[in-house]
Amino acid sequence: MQIVQEQVCFGGRQIRYQHDSNVLNCSMQFSVFLPPQAAAGPVPAVYWLSGLTCSDENFSSKAGAQRIAAELGLALIIPDTSPRGEGVADDENAAYDLGLGAGFYVNATQAPWNQHYQMYDYVLNELPALVEAELPLSGKRAISGHSMGGHGALVLALRNPERFVSVSAFSPICNPSDCPWGEKALSAYLGENRQMWAHYDASLLLMSKGSTLPILVDQGEADNFLAEQLKPQALVQAAKQANADLTLRMQPGYDHSYYFIASFIEDHLRFHAKHLG
Amino acid sequence: MQIVQEQVCFGGRQIRYQHDSNVLNCSMQFSVFLPPQAAAGPVPAVYWLSGLTCSDENFSSKAGAQRIAAELGLALIIPDTSPRGEGVADDENAAYDLGLGAGFYVNATQAPWNQHYQMYDYVLNELPALVEAELPLSGKRAISGHSMGGHGALVLALRNPERFVSVSAFSPICNPSDCPWGEKALSAYLGENRQMWAHYDASLLLMSKGSTLPILVDQGEADNFLAEQLKPQALVQAAKQANADLTLRMQPGYDHSYYFIASFIEDHLRFHAKHLG
Repeated sequence: MQIVQEQVCFGGRQIRYQHDSNVLNCSMQFSVFLPPQAAAGPVPAVYWLSGLTCSDENFSSKAGAQRIAAELGLALIIPDTSPRGEGVADDENAAYDLGLGAGFYVNATQAPWNQHYQMYDYVLNELPALVEAELPLSGKRAISGHSMGGHGALVLALRNPERFVSVSAFSPICNPSDCPWGEKALSAYLGENRQMWAHYDASLLLMSKGSTLPILVDQGEADNFLAEQLKPQALVQAAKQANADLTLRMQPGYDHSYYFIASFIEDHLRFHAKHLG
Repeated sequence: MQIVQEQVCFGGRQIRYQHDSNVLNCSMQFSVFLPPQAAAGPVPAVYWLSGLTCSDENFSSKAGAQRIAAELGLALIIPDTSPRGEGVADDENAAYDLGLGAGFYVNATQAPWNQHYQMYDYVLNELPALVEAELPLSGKRAISGHSMGGHGALVLALRNPERFVSVSAFSPICNPSDCPWGEKALSAYLGENRQMWAHYDASLLLMSKGSTLPILVDQGEADNFLAEQLKPQALVQAAKQANADLTLRMQPGYDHSYYFIASFIEDHLRFHAKHLG
């Protein structure tokens, strides 16, 4: 785990690391924000999972999250969105919604993807173990994300409620078994057996397993992907059926961009800080 | 003046416009943030001039300024850093510090630059006249910028104190007549007569003309360009000699990046809001 870049930001440290991932079988970069409080002792962490086409840099540079994280004493852990490097398979047409930049936070079972695309295990196990061994982190975790990353955050938290105290998402892909982005990615990574897809579908997981986790979701009403790809009503229906603690906020006028995330990231970090204690 | 892109952000409108500039003799894009208060009536504006290699997008997406502008009721007017387009001259080696993305906010007198590179007149006259005719702006103006744009903000304000109520800068090029970036650009755009350069050198202008404008400058102590290119001590000496109202804050650990700008933009916008009334 080597520092690639480091900058002071709001009195804390914004750091980009490189490391060799055993799980992903390639070299990876990720970013961390350590708040000023981390100089005095361990702090809790909010994991942020980014959306299609993103790397760790988008959230780091565009969300304005460091200001609030510095105030609240939260570390931010920001992984990349897929394995990377010359030997890593990509979509044959370099589509933005499959392959590089589009790992969908699953453990791929199908060739050629299964050689590297194990983002579920990477974010759940390898990355937390690494940063908690090397950085002043308390081991208390919350998780959030955007779009494909909102899907990832919900799936990781719903399947592993003992690992996270709270989960939130911006414009998540709520029901990937039933939208074009999800159907394309899940069939490629997991094959055509839809029973396998259900392990990576937040709405189906919530319906089948239930959850006691606090869940906050923000969704822009002017989001071009809302009706076809995101389907928050599926998550709401599952939450009702499971009697889960979901707050969905529809935000009039907002779209799918980082201008939307920047506008409401403060609410999400305060939500997580409350549960992180 | 046509809308290219528009997004809701912190309850206001982040808008990218395209227009045909008479002064620059080409088509230009610029960005505007209109705070929620602009829906009810005219608001004052802070102009932001960006640094080398930037367009209007860097400050718009990375500084986190909209949050504070929305709170304070300030519009943000964010021009590009040079003329653009196929017919516009660029450095023969496409250097980052001359030509496209590097207009230095001067009126070029030398061929081939004098055909389009009239950024001083564009930012001082054409752009304010345009946006004040088309948008709910009160005509009260402050100006700020970063690096090359900090130089531009200081020069525009010191030469035209009746146009701006206050000026601020992050890591400005304070004495371009005496640093490599400035000497390269000013000799190309203005020729070898250094008397012409003095009209575009904040330290020389402050020494010769004085100023009653409130001036705020933030400078990171870990900025790689500090000693060779930025030279804030030249501005401080000129301000002392002219008895000008300059506050220079040296910020330990901070570098030249937008992580630095994001950390202190709130202070700058509150400074301008106080003077804009």
